[in-house]
Amino acid sequence: MKGSSILITGAGGFTGRHACTYFSEMGMRVYAAVRHADTPVASGEGVVCDMLHKEQIYMMVRQLQPDYVLHLAGRNSVPESWQEPVTYLETNMMSTFYLLDALREVPKCRTLVVGSKLKFDITVSTEPPHPYSLSKTMQQIAVSTWVHLFGQCMMLAEPCNLIGPGPSTGICALIARKMVQVERNVMTDPFRLSSLEERRDFLDVRDAVKAYGVILERGQGGHTYPIESGILRSLGEVFQTFQHHAKKTIPVEVVNPSAGQHVPLDPGHAAMMHEFGWEANIPFDQSIQDIIHYFRNP
Amino acid sequence: MKGSSILITGAGGFTGRHACTYFSEMGMRVYAAVRHADTPVASGEGVVCDMLHKEQIYMMVRQLQPDYVLHLAGRNSVPESWQEPVTYLETNMMSTFYLLDALREVPKCRTLVVGSKLKFDITVSTEPPHPYSLSKTMQQIAVSTWVHLFGQCMMLAEPCNLIGPGPSTGICALIARKMVQVERNVMTDPFRLSSLEERRDFLDVRDAVKAYGVILERGQGGHTYPIESGILRSLGEVFQTFQHHAKKTIPVEVVNPSAGQHVPLDPGHAAMMHEFGWEANIPFDQSIQDIIHYFRNP
Repeated sequence: MKGSSILITGAGGFTGRHACTYFSEMGMRVYAAVRHADTPVASGEGVVCDMLHKEQIYMMVRQLQPDYVLHLAGRNSVPESWQEPVTYLETNMMSTFYLLDALREVPKCRTLVVGSKLKFDITVSTEPPHPYSLSKTMQQIAVSTWVHLFGQCMMLAEPCNLIGPGPSTGICALIARKMVQVERNVMTDPFRLSSLEERRDFLDVRDAVKAYGVILERGQGGHTYPIESGILRSLGEVFQTFQHHAKKTIPVEVVNPSAGQHVPLDPGHAAMMHEFGWEANIPFDQSIQDIIHYFRNP
Repeated sequence: MKGSSILITGAGGFTGRHACTYFSEMGMRVYAAVRHADTPVASGEGVVCDMLHKEQIYMMVRQLQPDYVLHLAGRNSVPESWQEPVTYLETNMMSTFYLLDALREVPKCRTLVVGSKLKFDITVSTEPPHPYSLSKTMQQIAVSTWVHLFGQCMMLAEPCNLIGPGPSTGICALIARKMVQVERNVMTDPFRLSSLEERRDFLDVRDAVKAYGVILERGQGGHTYPIESGILRSLGEVFQTFQHHAKKTIPVEVVNPSAGQHVPLDPGHAAMMHEFGWEANIPFDQSIQDIIHYFRNP
């Protein structure tokens, strides 16, 4: 991939920033697409494009003719999706259709669309748990049908909970923010932890970005690749890891100690990534320390 | 339904015109939504709305607060959908999302979205035969998931081949046009009939519109209602019916005499409509004569 070009959408976001850094360091020409001209870009050339504006997407793709596309742009807040369901469909699904259509003019381009494990299984029911889930399911259908209709090389990645330094909105970032407030003696409510028992797969965003690179290089068009660490950790364990590194006791209120869905791991799917020689490398504790460092030194 | 109001989108189209006439004659207040102000409206009050413009849809729905909505607007040419796949997704799927979202402000409204039998089965494969099929499948998912997420009363109808007087683009209209050319001694190529054996279910559009009324009144939210005559006719038989009424011999070239997919009938589904007391009433030969009359006397 060295020497070739990659267009990264959502480049100003949590994953986007790490992706720009990673692919730049790999020796690729990085086009970092952001919505607003004043969004800082971690690395590469900033490109302003509002993914809701079809014409801007077509013009960007036509101009850049990228060898690779990593489509990270989108919205990912479940509560917000209840308020603005159509915005979620436009941002997560329609912008993907616009991008796929624009890429018909760059037939050799290899594209990876980053989906979500919060999609629902349309082959089983028509009952999404929330509009965000609907929008990501529709995005997945967009990619898999487009590959069939127009024969382009497009893949899907479905990452688990990505953690690491940067402006994430995930639970680890929320705990780290609270911890730093407590350390600075800011008056604050206890951290509300939904459950101690709920178990999730956490993966460092830098490991995920490497996985995206591997899929872009070697993935098969139409396939969906789950990106997992393979280790489930309870929210109680996650909280304790932060507490272990904290200078003060983080006040916590556990809403429902024993509740929690357990997202099952899929070892068969994980094997697909191991065949590519990819595996998670950054230890969980290292990720947590890096998150803490990020929030202690903003 | 008498005395209540109905918003009909795509009111200027083949089915839309018949729908405006039917619901007006039933004593309903008909809002006939058309894209361009100069589109003639068969009956009711014309309302100009471009279904691709979200704001126009929201404003129209907010203003009219209809008791019923019959959503007919959309594009339906398979060849055109290959040229403009994104336009088809915008017109057939995204406009439906906009309409459903706008209708959250009119919670008592009962809505019928008219889909297509050309949708593909997403529970079986991700391989639509063409972008039109994809757009109608996505429209169907839009309706069935929206009902679950927001609890509105929305139904889907899946009509077979609708025929009858008016500006249709279906095979019967095409044969009638050719027949009238021949009768007027216009020099013309033979009619290209894809097959003699291919069998389809043809239903008069006026019967279909009655079925839509029945579903709007009595249908159950989230359900899909197939609208069928229950009789399969071969294209050869259809052509012969026209020839029988023609004043001259219609030249014909059969591309592949014995070819043809047979769209299977679904008697279980048809029973749903019979329970509502609906059945097809207009004899096939009557439909054909009315089509011929329409094209002979434009």
